[in-house]
Amino acid sequence: MKTTGYAAKSEGSELTEFSFERRSLRDNDVEIEILYCGVCHTDLHVVRNDWGGSNYPLVPGHEIVGKVMSVGGGVTKYKQGDTVAVGCMVDSCKSCDQCDNHEEQLCREGMVGTYAGKDRISGEMTQGGYSKHVVVREEFVLSVPQSLELSRVAPLLCAGITTYSPLHKWGVKEGSRVAVLGLGGLGHMAVKNAVAMGATVTVIGRSESKKEDAINLGAQHYVVSTNDDEMKDSKSAFDLIIDTIPVKHDLSIYTPLLDIDGTLVIVGQIGPVDEVNTVPLLMGRRRITGSLIGGIKETQQMLEFCGENNVLPECEMINIDEINTAYERMERSDVRYRFVIDMASLNA
Amino acid sequence: MKTTGYAAKSEGSELTEFSFERRSLRDNDVEIEILYCGVCHTDLHVVRNDWGGSNYPLVPGHEIVGKVMSVGGGVTKYKQGDTVAVGCMVDSCKSCDQCDNHEEQLCREGMVGTYAGKDRISGEMTQGGYSKHVVVREEFVLSVPQSLELSRVAPLLCAGITTYSPLHKWGVKEGSRVAVLGLGGLGHMAVKNAVAMGATVTVIGRSESKKEDAINLGAQHYVVSTNDDEMKDSKSAFDLIIDTIPVKHDLSIYTPLLDIDGTLVIVGQIGPVDEVNTVPLLMGRRRITGSLIGGIKETQQMLEFCGENNVLPECEMINIDEINTAYERMERSDVRYRFVIDMASLNA
Repeated sequence: MKTTGYAAKSEGSELTEFSFERRSLRDNDVEIEILYCGVCHTDLHVVRNDWGGSNYPLVPGHEIVGKVMSVGGGVTKYKQGDTVAVGCMVDSCKSCDQCDNHEEQLCREGMVGTYAGKDRISGEMTQGGYSKHVVVREEFVLSVPQSLELSRVAPLLCAGITTYSPLHKWGVKEGSRVAVLGLGGLGHMAVKNAVAMGATVTVIGRSESKKEDAINLGAQHYVVSTNDDEMKDSKSAFDLIIDTIPVKHDLSIYTPLLDIDGTLVIVGQIGPVDEVNTVPLLMGRRRITGSLIGGIKETQQMLEFCGENNVLPECEMINIDEINTAYERMERSDVRYRFVIDMASLNA
Repeated sequence: MKTTGYAAKSEGSELTEFSFERRSLRDNDVEIEILYCGVCHTDLHVVRNDWGGSNYPLVPGHEIVGKVMSVGGGVTKYKQGDTVAVGCMVDSCKSCDQCDNHEEQLCREGMVGTYAGKDRISGEMTQGGYSKHVVVREEFVLSVPQSLELSRVAPLLCAGITTYSPLHKWGVKEGSRVAVLGLGGLGHMAVKNAVAMGATVTVIGRSESKKEDAINLGAQHYVVSTNDDEMKDSKSAFDLIIDTIPVKHDLSIYTPLLDIDGTLVIVGQIGPVDEVNTVPLLMGRRRITGSLIGGIKETQQMLEFCGENNVLPECEMINIDEINTAYERMERSDVRYRFVIDMASLNA
């Protein structure tokens, strides 16, 4: 089918309207009319080819919410009219140990990204959610709980699961002591998810500037990382640190804030971090690890959790023709906390 | 009581004979005649004040094996003639959560080191095992299984437990895939312990030079880290990496060798490591952590395990008057794999 979207036509170019073809429904495919699509910093990285390997024209977008228009003959989970979502991946091998274990994001053959990925059957490049329609394999389509305010659901599909997964995997529960580094799209979802899990949440920022926001989002405490006294008082104070800082930084400022056997999970920076001091690791078995979105089962679980606890991102709704301005603003962190494109603004 | 040992009289000085006083037995103390004492690289660091805070005269030594000479009135675990051992610590608060959890090495008030520590009652500086006698609180004295060749037991008390503990904590068992980085005092014990636990063990070295030794110690495989093909073939190949490299190095060469959810445990380098690439951490939830000896209960368990499996270090026995030469040789890694002082060579 023909559809319309917004694409970068070349490396780093502005996004402009773009007509393209979505594949005909395979037996296990779901055709979705996209209603909303979140804007993730990754979109900007890939448009600019920051990580290499991008091809153009490129339609970004991997925080997708919409309605089922039609389904392939073998589809059993969804029917026309269902409210559904698609996150960062649209396929995987579904036969390796990781896929068997519901960790498709860690598929041994590599997950297929929602955009800039390579379709496992046709070899075509996948195109993302800044568009009117998308066709996705049933197993990678998620069900959206009715209780959630639909216009705010999209960012859960990346920022939501990226922070929910490590909180869940590392056993955060009532009384857990969680710190969140950085208060952007990811950070604010880490706070909301951790608070909903019953944790005592501390946001750590470089200045007082985000303190009020942190408290409004539900955090109980705020620590200024440049205040030596506050940092000293926070020594060994946390079971888990969710590190959403998206640039090279010094982990060794933060590892001493972990309690013995505590874990710092990197979800923001993809690339180098500064030299690491091993002393806090040895003298307390503190751990540094990372996390990448979550599997489909866990993403569905996250949506249910958010539905039950009314966890939703703070969003600023934009029209699709505002996307280039939104990218500029995102670059200077001028967004609280996530742009969402109202796809009704795109005339098909 | 009066005793004799070998001490550094000032920062970095050679060790020479030294007469000093051991405390009178407290109610819960055990007096031990030292038969053997292992020589750990830490001894040299502290003699040289590499980490600051050393005071002199200083008697090193925290891999101690001996016989009980007498016990305090309240001692119930040991009696005269028992074969016992003392490791890296001789006291802790015994009332914090970590001590309650048998992790005295992580005591909230700090463990008391076997030497260069501060006695919790008298405030005096503790003196180590390069001496004829030592007096130690009952709870920090270990029982040596009779099956073990006594002259080779001493290094188990530091090198043994330092490598056993992370293997044990991270669940190494039959079929686990373990890599060991560095093949010195710690590394060779990591190999022996991991093999005894049933793991498939690979030693990773910078050249072929240690391959034969690695295989002789029980490792099944050897990988040369400067051989790109071998390293590529080892991608995602290990559940656990025990990193005994004692100097600043680049972890990011090794983290991709971990399988998904695998763990690299630093036990060698105390200080900085190079910048860390987060990609292998995010793209597979790989973990970096550290480990510091083990608690008393786990150390006793390790001794039993070594007794049952006849795990013993490779030792070179020296007389106490050879200690300064041994330090020189240890500095140029000219030891396979641990010096042990025969304390009979010290005339009391």
